[in-house]
Amino acid sequence: MTTYIEPKILKGFRDFLPKAEMIRRDLTETIESTFRSFGFVPIDTPALEYAEILLGKGGGETEKQIYRFSDNGGRDVALRFDLTVPFARYVALHRGELVFPFKRYHIGKVWRGENTQRGRYREFTQCDFDIIGSDSPAADFEIILLIYSAFKNLGVDVSIHVNHRGLFNRFLTHIDQVDKSVEVLRAVDKLAKIGDDEVRKLLTELTGSANAQKIIEFISAKGSFSETLQCLTDLSGGVSPESERLSVLHQYMIDALGRKENDTQDEPFVLAPSITRGLDYYTGVVFETFLKELPDIGSVCSGGRYDNLAGLYSKDKNTVSGVGTSIGLDRLIAALESLEKLPAAGSHTTAITCVNAQKSGEYQALAQKLRKAGIACEVLSGGENSDTSQSADKLLVKQFILAEKKGLRYVIIPNEDPSGGHVTLRDLSNRQNQELSLEEVIYKLNCG
Amino acid sequence: MTTYIEPKILKGFRDFLPKAEMIRRDLTETIESTFRSFGFVPIDTPALEYAEILLGKGGGETEKQIYRFSDNGGRDVALRFDLTVPFARYVALHRGELVFPFKRYHIGKVWRGENTQRGRYREFTQCDFDIIGSDSPAADFEIILLIYSAFKNLGVDVSIHVNHRGLFNRFLTHIDQVDKSVEVLRAVDKLAKIGDDEVRKLLTELTGSANAQKIIEFISAKGSFSETLQCLTDLSGGVSPESERLSVLHQYMIDALGRKENDTQDEPFVLAPSITRGLDYYTGVVFETFLKELPDIGSVCSGGRYDNLAGLYSKDKNTVSGVGTSIGLDRLIAALESLEKLPAAGSHTTAITCVNAQKSGEYQALAQKLRKAGIACEVLSGGENSDTSQSADKLLVKQFILAEKKGLRYVIIPNEDPSGGHVTLRDLSNRQNQELSLEEVIYKLNCG
Repeated sequence: MTTYIEPKILKGFRDFLPKAEMIRRDLTETIESTFRSFGFVPIDTPALEYAEILLGKGGGETEKQIYRFSDNGGRDVALRFDLTVPFARYVALHRGELVFPFKRYHIGKVWRGENTQRGRYREFTQCDFDIIGSDSPAADFEIILLIYSAFKNLGVDVSIHVNHRGLFNRFLTHIDQVDKSVEVLRAVDKLAKIGDDEVRKLLTELTGSANAQKIIEFISAKGSFSETLQCLTDLSGGVSPESERLSVLHQYMIDALGRKENDTQDEPFVLAPSITRGLDYYTGVVFETFLKELPDIGSVCSGGRYDNLAGLYSKDKNTVSGVGTSIGLDRLIAALESLEKLPAAGSHTTAITCVNAQKSGEYQALAQKLRKAGIACEVLSGGENSDTSQSADKLLVKQFILAEKKGLRYVIIPNEDPSGGHVTLRDLSNRQNQELSLEEVIYKLNCG
Repeated sequence: MTTYIEPKILKGFRDFLPKAEMIRRDLTETIESTFRSFGFVPIDTPALEYAEILLGKGGGETEKQIYRFSDNGGRDVALRFDLTVPFARYVALHRGELVFPFKRYHIGKVWRGENTQRGRYREFTQCDFDIIGSDSPAADFEIILLIYSAFKNLGVDVSIHVNHRGLFNRFLTHIDQVDKSVEVLRAVDKLAKIGDDEVRKLLTELTGSANAQKIIEFISAKGSFSETLQCLTDLSGGVSPESERLSVLHQYMIDALGRKENDTQDEPFVLAPSITRGLDYYTGVVFETFLKELPDIGSVCSGGRYDNLAGLYSKDKNTVSGVGTSIGLDRLIAALESLEKLPAAGSHTTAITCVNAQKSGEYQALAQKLRKAGIACEVLSGGENSDTSQSADKLLVKQFILAEKKGLRYVIIPNEDPSGGHVTLRDLSNRQNQELSLEEVIYKLNCG
């Protein structure tokens, strides 16, 4: 009797077919090479950690969503649900081995038992990047410029909305409402969801109508970066370290991209006082990133500055502050797909046809020459050795079809003597053949 | 009261510091680009699957080592312990969506609750590659050539030991001992461990001394590929489909690498009849890969041809046969480390010094120019904004030290006006400064 097991996968988990996986890998490579171009270095941490470490102070949504179990040794373990908590633990453990300011990236899978009805996955990839051990505004700016450059390299323009958590707090102090800051932040955070009027209602209940008016004025300030900053500075009682920091940041933006001071045309950086990232642990600059051609999908890369990354896992009194963010690969792919800006998969290889299986070794020798010249080259299968019933022409046609299925544009048809000088290059898109020397083929495939 | 959680990681799991992770990523990239150069395409599968799927027919070591638990929905799930079982399930599930012959690679982490005292890890990375849906010897050869090329691209020469499981069985049939094949294979597999004499003793007990002598003769056959093949063919009763297949394979090897027939000098391919991969599920060609400069660490890449990959998960009567293998990244890294052939990490970036934090934006503009020219370039931290007590010279020296810690050879010291033509390039290895135009810097850093 034959055993049979139904081949199924868990809800919220995904298999990736070659085309999808190629795109994922190509995008990751673009992001990674941008990280590297800024001198950021990679790290990795285990998928599985002590549950106590991952849950930290514990509680809330995390506890419900985490994959947690007892391992064979009876240890209480869990799969990481983000890359931030493991990073905090990592920094506490390896502090003496790291070079500060530490600029690291981490690309890896994380797992959450999300409700899949909301279109969420239970396994997904995050790309985190942070600079820790530096309080300087240059570090804030470097992260923002890195976001800008990563998306630029992916072929999309972004608008990065920046704010300073401390400036909002200073403003609340100035209008004597800082004791209600948590509730106010929570209300302000709902702006995009419920609209001005509803937020005003909530704020009036909390702080009275005069203060609500001022808060609405603050979070609605618009204009160029400098104009908005001037307005926020005035509303928060004049120049402060926080307004100064935003001013320095703005100067960096102008200098780095060579823009004119008040040129708002295509400005990639916007001062957006409604961004507070309300309930997160950020303490300084915060930011959200929107695709210029697809703003409605919301922020594709949010983050900010925090005070004490490793505090929970460290007895060291010198805290490690930093600034950082994360790109969610799945959301990015969905966005690029809508914009028809996904990289083409499978077009970066050619194939050598094989009508005589006995010559497979010689075909591979030809392929090795192309590979050495940087051309990905597959040798197609010539049917089984015993299969001599098919004519060479029929075999060729079968292989053209196969190559097209693989998304290839060109195939190479070797001559009777594959080591001889010339081959036939077939363009599958227009069914044209060309007799070319190997050097000509290499030039054509490498240089278009 | 402050909460404190001790920052520890699970036994058998590892954090990767930047240098180690850079090396892992660079090696993976080399292997992956070799796969791609052969037209192999990537796939991915979930880390977590139904335990039933992963355990298959179940039993044995796997069951004891697997990380298995009930998820929040009460499903019996487990972490994948290899990439072969998920691939079998994947092929059964997506058969209609794949293009055959299907040449895929899969690089991913797997988890086993191994005994860590034996120096094993509980989380490690595998790089699997297979061709399925082709019975041809050209496919066998392509996998072997791919192994050869991947290690060549990693900078090491290998010796790939090849055999045919069917030829050994034919030989056992010829001497009328095929009913004891499992026991004989088990004994032969111990050759490297216990030596000729002990294996002879075991075989004599099993098959009598005359047969034991013949078996020893078979597995000890030596010489060039052709000589050994002739000997094995004679011992197994003359030319057979299996001996023919090895002969075809040998011809491919000669043709592809352009070698002379009996040139054993530096021969990368060896016919090694003692390799049977005894208890594995291989049915045709089998192979093991040894590093020429470090053969004692054993095979770094073993595999072979199998009959029916997805059988357990498929009701389809058309079986999917294939040929494939796996490179273990950790073992490879240990081997390259012994050979001092690990890629240098961290040397592929330069840094711009920063003695005036106010100019951070201009320094980043300069860095962006280098990045566009393909040079990874970091802007060093100029100390905190408020820190004006340090002289520019002291700041520079601190940044030289920092750059050296990061493994950089060159730093760029911008002039007073960073947008101006010239910069100072400092070679940290000999402390020499050079005044250069930006074009000269780019040329020097890109072209050595």
